[in-house]
Amino acid sequence: MEPLDVADRITAEDLRPIWSAMDTDERVQAFHLLTPDDGSDLFQSLTVLDQVEILTGLSVGERRLWMRSLAPDDAADVLQSLPPEKREAWLDLLDEATRREVRVLLAYAEDEAGGLMSPRFARIRAAMTVDEAIRYLRKQIQGHLETIYYAYVLDAEQRLIGVVSIRELFAARGDGPVADVMRREVVSVPETMDQEALAKVFAEQDLMAIPVVDEEGRMKGIVTVDDIVDVVQEEATEDIQKLGGMEALDAPYLQTRFLPMLKKRAGWLAALFIGETLTASAMAHYEDDMKKAVVLALFVPLIISSGGNSGSQASTLIIRAMALGEVRLRDWWRIIQREMSFGIALGGILAMIGLVRILIWQGLFHTYGLHYLKVAITVAISLVGVVLWGTMCGSMLPFVMRRLGFDPASASAPFVATLVDVSGLVIYFSVAQVVLRGMLV
Amino acid sequence: MEPLDVADRITAEDLRPIWSAMDTDERVQAFHLLTPDDGSDLFQSLTVLDQVEILTGLSVGERRLWMRSLAPDDAADVLQSLPPEKREAWLDLLDEATRREVRVLLAYAEDEAGGLMSPRFARIRAAMTVDEAIRYLRKQIQGHLETIYYAYVLDAEQRLIGVVSIRELFAARGDGPVADVMRREVVSVPETMDQEALAKVFAEQDLMAIPVVDEEGRMKGIVTVDDIVDVVQEEATEDIQKLGGMEALDAPYLQTRFLPMLKKRAGWLAALFIGETLTASAMAHYEDDMKKAVVLALFVPLIISSGGNSGSQASTLIIRAMALGEVRLRDWWRIIQREMSFGIALGGILAMIGLVRILIWQGLFHTYGLHYLKVAITVAISLVGVVLWGTMCGSMLPFVMRRLGFDPASASAPFVATLVDVSGLVIYFSVAQVVLRGMLV
Repeated sequence: MEPLDVADRITAEDLRPIWSAMDTDERVQAFHLLTPDDGSDLFQSLTVLDQVEILTGLSVGERRLWMRSLAPDDAADVLQSLPPEKREAWLDLLDEATRREVRVLLAYAEDEAGGLMSPRFARIRAAMTVDEAIRYLRKQIQGHLETIYYAYVLDAEQRLIGVVSIRELFAARGDGPVADVMRREVVSVPETMDQEALAKVFAEQDLMAIPVVDEEGRMKGIVTVDDIVDVVQEEATEDIQKLGGMEALDAPYLQTRFLPMLKKRAGWLAALFIGETLTASAMAHYEDDMKKAVVLALFVPLIISSGGNSGSQASTLIIRAMALGEVRLRDWWRIIQREMSFGIALGGILAMIGLVRILIWQGLFHTYGLHYLKVAITVAISLVGVVLWGTMCGSMLPFVMRRLGFDPASASAPFVATLVDVSGLVIYFSVAQVVLRGMLV
Repeated sequence: MEPLDVADRITAEDLRPIWSAMDTDERVQAFHLLTPDDGSDLFQSLTVLDQVEILTGLSVGERRLWMRSLAPDDAADVLQSLPPEKREAWLDLLDEATRREVRVLLAYAEDEAGGLMSPRFARIRAAMTVDEAIRYLRKQIQGHLETIYYAYVLDAEQRLIGVVSIRELFAARGDGPVADVMRREVVSVPETMDQEALAKVFAEQDLMAIPVVDEEGRMKGIVTVDDIVDVVQEEATEDIQKLGGMEALDAPYLQTRFLPMLKKRAGWLAALFIGETLTASAMAHYEDDMKKAVVLALFVPLIISSGGNSGSQASTLIIRAMALGEVRLRDWWRIIQREMSFGIALGGILAMIGLVRILIWQGLFHTYGLHYLKVAITVAISLVGVVLWGTMCGSMLPFVMRRLGFDPASASAPFVATLVDVSGLVIYFSVAQVVLRGMLV
């Protein structure tokens, strides 16, 4: 491998923008060229997968050094991303106290509160004076406390009985007891709370950190709001990928290998395709009508895509509103009423455009034959029906998915479109059979 | 209006889950029934739009009380959501010092660093000793400092020259100067930085707060990471709505009125519809072929939807990877190579399924006539072509949008599908003309 240019003067800031374009060897090599400070800056800001990539490329001695630079929750994330057979060896690189903390964290799922929390938080006692508490916190900080926004008041059984922000502690009289300053109504979450629910608690409560407690009310750690930024990004990414009609990836696009990616895309694509073969059956059902009036076939793509697009809008709106907690299961009746109005209005608008388009083309090119007016009316009526049906399906499918225990985000645009395509054809040809009765018999 | 049930024992926690189902009058009434503590809890956690709704329903005296309970950046958000003619009257409710701060904030756009920042941050001087700095911070806190994670070191011209975390200040020797403890390389952002770029700086730097400076390096305020959670949610919501084929809403789904919502949906839907009318023209072009072999028409929805679905997957993946900074403009060549492999593989899989499906139906129902084998081959070859073309368009369209200065998220699934529908028809009928040569002449 060739050495990098201007290798000796490289900084973390130089590397960030080109990081995604480098392969593993180049990354490890570039990482070696950084000053210790710059290396640390870059290392701490990398994603877990990138950290694992670098660590794997380092010697055991270097790996020990960098593993020990990680906070316990970050070290646990790294270990969780490793193949199981490597985990023990890497765990042994940590000092004993951290190793014990990390083992505890590894027992939790990555996406629950216990897996996100840091076990290092500031703890004080209710009976201390404010000045004693501040001195005690200063000592804890010199140990290895990671962050300090709130001090948590625990009783002898490690149960959480109160909380006081550093700000409040600073502002209070130094000789009064902590018990007089602390708030006793503490927002806390169970260890097993899912990260999406946790993000909602943060959104509602406007706190910088939330304590995690076990079933007996004993405090286990804190989750800080900066970890929630990552959770929110991750959940949005999963939803967006599902909305695109595929399984969510577990890693960034460029770091997902060919076969795992193919599997995640091919599964849904094949399922949608098989669903869509029903359109061929539906079309076959109306084959005789098309033989009598091929003009009918011309508008098939236009009709079904309009249903798909209006359905995609509706499902996307509802899925996102559900994810943000703006819409709940019991709101379905309100939504159906609203979306019915939108379906009629939107269908009406498209019907008008379609009508005008057919009449203009007929005037200019005589494309649609003798019965052009009946064809135009068929298309216009079908558009109202199909768009209305699209918004209904699109807005209700997320409710159905949720009710059945699936992720509403699976009611993706392509899924809704497939559903609406088949029924859209039935609507279109049924309207045609009525309006064009004379032609088709 | 009827009084609420169990009105006298209501708490903030009771209200949160039913909040979205209540109308304005009910919300204001319920808000009045809360204890001051509970009212404050609920009020601080409401969205800006909900805060405005409540404030509007209160008497002037109550409104003054609650406006004054807001931090200056939150008060600015409330004022920014008001109709301009009401702003001055509400601004007058604030005390004079806050009013001055809020006026400064109102000069910034809502979605830039200046509009997100709080002007209240902890400031110290480099020449102070650590003990003096801690005492000085205690005094600032007793004033109206909102949050305290970092203390910023300013020179006489208010230029930012260093930063020290409260943790570091606590851990340092009390009699040494701040200058010896502070870090001089401070990450800061300009007032005009866009909130999406700001969220990326937070993701890269792993800080709890970032200082905002003007062109001369004078410090203006801090943005804290909890505000970034909202930004990240908001940006994801905008992207998701655009991906659904519509304009992004400015407010939650249920709070968006009929006409503004109709406008945001009808615009794109009509544009897509007009684009999709090209399919009618394309179909008209092949009308003679269909007259000779109506069987061709049967597979039109299947073929074009497969192109749309594969395009939707590709565009969604690339758009999200771009939003997260994983993929940049210059990566386009790497992406096109990757997506070409996926297009061929996915197209091949669908072609196999399609082939098997046609042969089975032919065996069972003799649906497709004498030339069924040629029809099956036409469908299979077209599927490979259309799916490949779909992934190519889907993956490249976000690059084109970005290069032209548009939001890549506008390359939505419905937009890609519309594009691919027209070209998919051309691919399909061209293949048919070659494979079915004998039948169609």
